[in-house]
Order: sequence, then structure tokens, then C-alpha cells
Amino acid sequence: MNANFRVTRRALLALAAALLAACAQIAPVADPLPSWNEGAAKSAIVQFVRKTTDAASPQFVPPAQRVATFDQDGTLWIEQPMYAQLAFALDRVKDVVKAQPSLAGEEPFKTVLSGDRAAMTRIKTEDLLKIVAVSQSGLTIETFHEVVKNWAATAKHPKYGRPYTELVYVPMLEVMKYLRSNGYRTYIVTGGGQEFVRAFAEAVYGVPPEQVVGTMFKLDYAIRDGKPTLTNAPALLFVDDSGGKPVGINMMIGRRPQAAFGNSGGDQQMLEWVTGGTGARLGMLVLHDDAQREFAYGPAAGLPASHVGSFTQALYDDAKKQGWTVISMKSDWKRVFAFD
Amino acid sequence: MNANFRVTRRALLALAAALLAACAQIAPVADPLPSWNEGAAKSAIVQFVRKTTDAASPQFVPPAQRVATFDQDGTLWIEQPMYAQLAFALDRVKDVVKAQPSLAGEEPFKTVLSGDRAAMTRIKTEDLLKIVAVSQSGLTIETFHEVVKNWAATAKHPKYGRPYTELVYVPMLEVMKYLRSNGYRTYIVTGGGQEFVRAFAEAVYGVPPEQVVGTMFKLDYAIRDGKPTLTNAPALLFVDDSGGKPVGINMMIGRRPQAAFGNSGGDQQMLEWVTGGTGARLGMLVLHDDAQREFAYGPAAGLPASHVGSFTQALYDDAKKQGWTVISMKSDWKRVFAFD
Repeated sequence: MNANFRVTRRALLALAAALLAACAQIAPVADPLPSWNEGAAKSAIVQFVRKTTDAASPQFVPPAQRVATFDQDGTLWIEQPMYAQLAFALDRVKDVVKAQPSLAGEEPFKTVLSGDRAAMTRIKTEDLLKIVAVSQSGLTIETFHEVVKNWAATAKHPKYGRPYTELVYVPMLEVMKYLRSNGYRTYIVTGGGQEFVRAFAEAVYGVPPEQVVGTMFKLDYAIRDGKPTLTNAPALLFVDDSGGKPVGINMMIGRRPQAAFGNSGGDQQMLEWVTGGTGARLGMLVLHDDAQREFAYGPAAGLPASHVGSFTQALYDDAKKQGWTVISMKSDWKRVFAFD
Repeated sequence: MNANFRVTRRALLALAAALLAACAQIAPVADPLPSWNEGAAKSAIVQFVRKTTDAASPQFVPPAQRVATFDQDGTLWIEQPMYAQLAFALDRVKDVVKAQPSLAGEEPFKTVLSGDRAAMTRIKTEDLLKIVAVSQSGLTIETFHEVVKNWAATAKHPKYGRPYTELVYVPMLEVMKYLRSNGYRTYIVTGGGQEFVRAFAEAVYGVPPEQVVGTMFKLDYAIRDGKPTLTNAPALLFVDDSGGKPVGINMMIGRRPQAAFGNSGGDQQMLEWVTGGTGARLGMLVLHDDAQREFAYGPAAGLPASHVGSFTQALYDDAKKQGWTVISMKSDWKRVFAFD
């Protein structure tokens, strides 16, 4: 071999690209959704991903537009017998009353301190918001995150005796991972507090803080002890629930997502907004019909109604009309939790 | 050569990676900031990028945390003699009054319709917000974007006779591109309307909608003619200026950026918040001291004060104290606009 080779940058790049393509073909194709039984729900997800990511598909979606949104409570993790954030806020009330003893005689704090769980379930929404507001107001963002992390590491769910962050649905984690490996950005769009969820979203779901859309409290900016700080104020800025979900999505993302996952009436408008766009869209709703492994509630399946995240007959009818897929926890999921 | 080769996937990947690394070394190193004169400002940017992206640097910043925020008016594009969004809103008032003739007799619309530019510059902030609100309320997000795009394509700046979207600072576009090519996400954080800026941010700055933080109006979600719609309501949700900038950054990004660029008192809190973090931080302020190529204003440089984005002596003193770099448009920039 006597010829002189001049290795150009272009030739090297072409060779490298060809080798990488070859590697990709050698890679084994594993089932991306191993915790899902074969059926309409699993198939809807796989078909949606194929047709929106295959460049030859008429329904191809460019990577920049690949956005999927997930409700949290009842969709990604457990919401019974009460929202995790409410459990957190109730636990926090004791600390807050220690600092402001006058609150002990005022409702709704009086009811909370009584320990009467039945009475607590009857607390009205505006009073719940008062509890949530009090549980974080006056704390800087960083301190609030620490408080939430400490709570998440120690609080136990009454049924399972495990931390709430272990009560996450493995099949949904698989969907998030599958979508991300296909170029989708996965956002959480929750009625829960944005900062509450941010405190653990990256560790639990692999979702970074900029992809958490939630109910927002006002924040005060000030220099304290020479340091710039952001402190939670005891006032709501924005409620990210029901009709607020499309608004929150527009505010934080500025594009209409291609896919949305929910489980209750508070997600209906998000699913309408997402699946109302052109091209391939995916709308899915988790039905809690698995009393053995989790909980069973929702009149749509002849199950008892619930004041927490109920799947009503009206939502079921709307799902049929709109082409949304209902996920049966009982029959679509091989397992629910990682410890199953 | 008689040996049998078994090409494993691992070996191919290693070879491909080695080739790509070789290609990267062969690539010529071009000046990433060709429109900048050599000096303290250019050097501050280059040094910041080097020390935060070199894995061996003690100030290395992991890619997920690489965020830089840019004010728009006066930092990325022209803000004199009036904010572009105000020029847009004033132009829109005529259309709005056509639809609602009763407004013609009411202030501030009466002043706007008089065409008296001097009187217009005296309109108070709350009245300006009224004009801005009226210029977009009742329109769906999609229609509002169309209206803004049409305006941007036709409206001309009074001094240059060119569209506002051509009055963008080339040196700042270079900084954004340079940061992005080093793994930074570049956000616009503007006192201007979030949807106003989104209408052109991707085309003009390469900034996608989810990276535009701005003043937000309330939105109404509803099904109209069978279609889910988001419509601008005539009420403010959030003002992204001064102390609102750190709040808007937290809301939309949920992390403290590593670098921030501004030009006026409305950016001071953003720079405080950003440079108040640990590790390598970059705070920069554009000083408009170039009457020939652009405008000259700002008491800090002995220039006239301006009611639009002024660089005060107090801001200048704060910049010195905080270690922020002042960019002199006149001496740091080889050229200002693409048409120079």
C-alpha cells in the first residue's frame, strides 16, 4: 500500500455516522413497556410513538414539537385516600401552629389539629388552599424544597406504610421514559403546587424543574441579610386545574402538546386542548379499578364515587366521544408499583 | 491477514466515538464573537463559557444547569424612541376603536388617536398597560400571533425605516448562539408581553416559545364553535419586570441561571438573583452610548436620561459593586445591526 491518504474531516464524519447507524441496527429491540399487558392501551401508546417519530409517516412530528403532559395525582402516583400534598400540609400545620399559636383556635386549623380524619375530608376547597398556603408561606424556595424532601423521606402512606414517592406507577414511568427516548419532553401538569412537586420531580420522575407546571403561589423577591431571596407569599397566583391546565400549559410551554395523560375531571380540559389539535394526538385516562393492588373508585366503572379525583360517567362518555383511551389499572397493568 | 474479526457493538461504538473526537479536533476554531472588539466585555463572555464548560474546571457547570437569561428591549433589540410593543399597541388602537367606537372618547385612547407623539410619551404606566391589554384582549392566542407577525412584517421604525425585527443587535445574537453551542439554553426574560415576544422569538432569536418569560395576561379557556380555545382576557396575571424578573425566572425555569444580560433598572433584580448564586456567574449590562449607530442615553455615562430603559448612576454603581460588566455599544461592538 503506497498511496498517500488524506483523511478529510468530511470523510471521517461520514464514516463515524455510518458506524453509529450500524451500531443502532445491531442494538436489540426490547419491549419499552414491559409492565403493560398487550391490549388497546399499550397499542395506542406504541402506535402513537411510531407514527409521530417515523420521518416517512404523514403524521411525523418534528422533535421540537414533541411534548407530552402528565397529570400527577392519580395518574403518576397514588391520590387516595387524600392528595399527598394535603397529607404534607396537614403534617405541616403542627409546625406552623407552633410558630403562630393563635391559629390553633381558628378553622380550618382547629379541625386539622383535632386529628379527626373524617372531619378533615369534609374541609372545603378554599380552606384546603388556606392550609396549603400556610404550609409554605414565609419560607424561601430553597427552604421549602428541603422541608418537602424531609417530609417525603419520612412520611408514610396509611395503606402501604411506605413513602409516597414509592407509590408511583411503574407503567407510567415506562411511558415517560419511552416517550423521552423518542425525543419527547415529558411535562408534569398538576393541580398540586409547582414548588411542592419540583422538590422531588427530578429524582422520582426524571422531570426537571422547568417541566413542572403546577398551581403557583405568589413569590416575594427581596434582599435579606445581603442575599437575594425568593419567599413564598400566602396568596395564590394561578390555579393549574381544570380550565387552568390548558392555560398553564400555554404559559409554561407555549405549544400545544401532542399527548396528554390524566385520570379525572380536572384533566378533561387538558385532554380536550391537546387532542383538539391537528395530526396525531394521544389522550389517555387512568381508571382506578384495582381495589386489590391500589384503589377502586369512579362511577364510570360502577365503582364508588370519590371526592378525590373521581372518574365520572360524564368523563367516560366524553372519552368515548373524543377518542381518548381509558387505561384499566386492573387489566392493562402487569404491575402497579416497583415493590409489587 | 487470516484472522477472523468479530466486530462487536462495543468496539464499533468505541471506534465511532474516537473518530468523532478526532473530527472535533480537526475542526477549525473560529472566533465565536466576530462582531465584538477585543476588550473586557468580550473577554468576560469567553472566559465565563470556558470555565463553566471545561470538565476539568473547578467552576464546571453540568449541561442541565446551563441557563442564560436575556432582557429583550434595549438588550437584544432597539427600545428607543419607544418600546416596540407600545408602537404595536398604538397601531392596534385604531383597529380596536373601529370595533368599539365608544373607546374613542376615553383616555388614554383619545390621546393615542390624536396622533400627538409628545402627549403619548406622557401616558402613565397604568394607561399603557390598558392600551396593551386592549390591543390583545378578545383574541385567541393563534390570532394574536398572526396579528403581531403581520405588524412586524409591515411596521417601520421611525429612525431607520426598517422593520423592528431587523433592529436586533448582531453582537447579542452571537452571544446567544455561542452560549447555545456550548450547551446553554438561552431564555428571554422581558417586561414585554410573553405572547407578543413569542410571535417572533423563534424566527428572530432562535428562542422557542417555552423559553420566553414575559408579562402575562390572563387567558380564558373555552369551547367555541366546538373547538377548544385560549383567549386573551383584558387583565394582567403577572408583570415580569424588576422584582418580577427573578419570580418569572423561578416560575418558568425553576433554577437560578448562570448568566444574565440586561440594560436598565428593570433588569437589576434579575442580575442580582443570577449573580448571587455560587460558582461562576456572569452579569452584563448594555450601555447605549452610540448616538451615531443607535441611540445615546443613560446618566451613568453623562448621557441624557430617558423614560425608556435608562441606565442610571445608581445602576452603574451597583454594577461596579457586584462585578457586572458594562458593555459599551460604541466601543465594544464592531457593528450593531446586520445591515451596518
